[in-house]
Amino acid sequence: MAEEKPSTVVTCTAPVNIAVVKYWGKRDEELILPINSSLSVTLHQDQLKTTTTAAISRDFKEDRLWLNGKEDDIGHPRLQSCLREIRRLARKRRGGNGDSGSGDHPPLSLAYKVHIASENNFPTAAGLASSAAGYACLVYTLAKLYGVEGELSEVARQGSGSACRSMFGGFVQWIVGESADGKDSVALQVAPETHWPELRVLILVVSAEKKPVGSTAGMQTSVKTSLLLKHRAEAVVPERMEQMIQHIQERDFEAFAELTMKDSNQFHATCMDTFPPIFYLNDVSKQVIALVHRFNAHYGKAKVAYTFDAGPNAVLFALEDTVDDLVEVVKRSFPPENNGGQFLKGLPVHKASLSDELLTAVVRDPVPGAIRYLLLTKPGPGPMMVEDASSHLLGADGLPQSSP
Amino acid sequence: MAEEKPSTVVTCTAPVNIAVVKYWGKRDEELILPINSSLSVTLHQDQLKTTTTAAISRDFKEDRLWLNGKEDDIGHPRLQSCLREIRRLARKRRGGNGDSGSGDHPPLSLAYKVHIASENNFPTAAGLASSAAGYACLVYTLAKLYGVEGELSEVARQGSGSACRSMFGGFVQWIVGESADGKDSVALQVAPETHWPELRVLILVVSAEKKPVGSTAGMQTSVKTSLLLKHRAEAVVPERMEQMIQHIQERDFEAFAELTMKDSNQFHATCMDTFPPIFYLNDVSKQVIALVHRFNAHYGKAKVAYTFDAGPNAVLFALEDTVDDLVEVVKRSFPPENNGGQFLKGLPVHKASLSDELLTAVVRDPVPGAIRYLLLTKPGPGPMMVEDASSHLLGADGLPQSSP
Repeated sequence: MAEEKPSTVVTCTAPVNIAVVKYWGKRDEELILPINSSLSVTLHQDQLKTTTTAAISRDFKEDRLWLNGKEDDIGHPRLQSCLREIRRLARKRRGGNGDSGSGDHPPLSLAYKVHIASENNFPTAAGLASSAAGYACLVYTLAKLYGVEGELSEVARQGSGSACRSMFGGFVQWIVGESADGKDSVALQVAPETHWPELRVLILVVSAEKKPVGSTAGMQTSVKTSLLLKHRAEAVVPERMEQMIQHIQERDFEAFAELTMKDSNQFHATCMDTFPPIFYLNDVSKQVIALVHRFNAHYGKAKVAYTFDAGPNAVLFALEDTVDDLVEVVKRSFPPENNGGQFLKGLPVHKASLSDELLTAVVRDPVPGAIRYLLLTKPGPGPMMVEDASSHLLGADGLPQSSP
Repeated sequence: MAEEKPSTVVTCTAPVNIAVVKYWGKRDEELILPINSSLSVTLHQDQLKTTTTAAISRDFKEDRLWLNGKEDDIGHPRLQSCLREIRRLARKRRGGNGDSGSGDHPPLSLAYKVHIASENNFPTAAGLASSAAGYACLVYTLAKLYGVEGELSEVARQGSGSACRSMFGGFVQWIVGESADGKDSVALQVAPETHWPELRVLILVVSAEKKPVGSTAGMQTSVKTSLLLKHRAEAVVPERMEQMIQHIQERDFEAFAELTMKDSNQFHATCMDTFPPIFYLNDVSKQVIALVHRFNAHYGKAKVAYTFDAGPNAVLFALEDTVDDLVEVVKRSFPPENNGGQFLKGLPVHKASLSDELLTAVVRDPVPGAIRYLLLTKPGPGPMMVEDASSHLLGADGLPQSSP
């Protein structure tokens, strides 16, 4: 096994993912071990990604972190877990002599301090689960920096549970695992992003007034109080994982769509069964759900699926040939308010002319301004290293570059 | 066993009930057999009741029905089930000779036609489960008319499942039963209304725009599609029934309140787990839930409980000494809009002066007009016969009296 020469500065990008079999609840808070397996679709980085630069130098006085250009606390326990774990793997890889600065790598002591800068190409406030992309990117970048290879999803998992699924492109399962140390609670790719080229993902960013209950606290309360969550984890999810993998392998959109919707609903049902109950869906979310069911009922089959994480934003799945119609229906149901911003972002959409029949059946009581914007994307690849030096977020001085 | 002389005209009243362990789902649609036991509190007829008059006469040409003064279809299958069942029991009681008009009852042939008039002392549209009171009253009145005694909850159940619980006052369980013919799926009184004199019930009638999915159709879809409902019925409710009975017997308000809220939440969780999902709670319902949790958190214990049936109206439980404060908090959170109607109906409430501490902790973002009115009531007795002839809803001609 040849040792690579670790770089002194590395920049990588990592994707967001959206679960279609939901993760909700930890059996171990420290190691972030889940109570059930989950499965997600990795979204394309052309639309949503985190970029992270990490650098080490003998000149750095302390470990430092910048998020979206602002210095932040690097002492966060979960971030420290990831950093510690990557350094441990690097030490192990170098046969335990990494700290002595011996042999091939005199300037790259593991004792040197690290500077990390990270930013998203989408607003953090949009509620698009930025922590998964953030921790996946952090772990991937540090691994490249320290020359660590192999199973990294287990490390990312310790930053943010769902981050382990952002370590791969396409369709990814996170295996619940059995062992107490979490070594078998890892992410595996079910199929690459090229497997289902027609699949599209439309994100509806809802204008929400309030910040909902955070997922870490929410999960804890659910695990403690919801009898239905326990049943879901033990008796429902194992079978759903098998079914979902099969639907993806067979590219069976209708079956994929129906199970995706059912699993989103069941996750929100366990939130409501939590005490005190947690509500992530607001009236606009419910209007989107009703719209999708009317759309599908009109065609007599599931042509669109919705899924919601711990917030009111909707993520819709549809095949390429349905997207133009779907976007038009959404626009008519939630007419954009003229606030100067672009309403439709991401992949291009063609103007659709809808039949009166479809409009009558599907569009009801339009709610202007209820949706801030739409983002069209598709399944995409996992984390990657950026070779172009001009992309580094840290300059030669180890401090954030001013944005280009 | 002396036979009573059946009257030719009888008027009775029956109460509404509100479930604290919820019934949702039938195992037999025809006989109305539930998938789990349930438990309810019978509300006082001084505030909410149905009145029914039934008369038989050789002069009547056909069976006829009037609801709230308007003639309605007596051919409804469930109403016919009740009528047929009571006539069958009457025939059995008379040793099979009822139809021949023999012996003691020459004028009261079971072949004579019946006229039935029924009305509520509350608006049907208020979503206050009028069918339970309605069918309980129908069955009780017909039984008095035909001189039938004994177990009648099984007959009322065949009109509307929860009607069987309105056949008793106080605290009532409906046993799920095991037999295929439903003979053991009956209501039993857990404790009479005098058992817990301090208990109060505050109904918040929410201004809803839309008629939600009806409970008959909703239940059918839930039974077909919700895995969580199946688990609830099999594994959760049996234990909750035992717990709830114990809390009531011990008059343990905190435990009663917490279990009541949890069970309401779980029922709505199973509705959300239904496919397509069913949402009965709207944003106002959720605001009421949040308000109750803040109220309880302020006192460090459950002083108020909420429960919601298949609609957005909230039913709150509290002890007498909490009611004045609770009403004031609700009024400040949902300031009445001046629409000419009375905002607080039912039992009297005293003006409360709330501490600033309580107000700051509990009242947030008031929503004027979100609640149409409040109705304060308490547990009450079961169905009863009205002796006063002036209360009959049918005149000597067998037709509805004009309202007094």
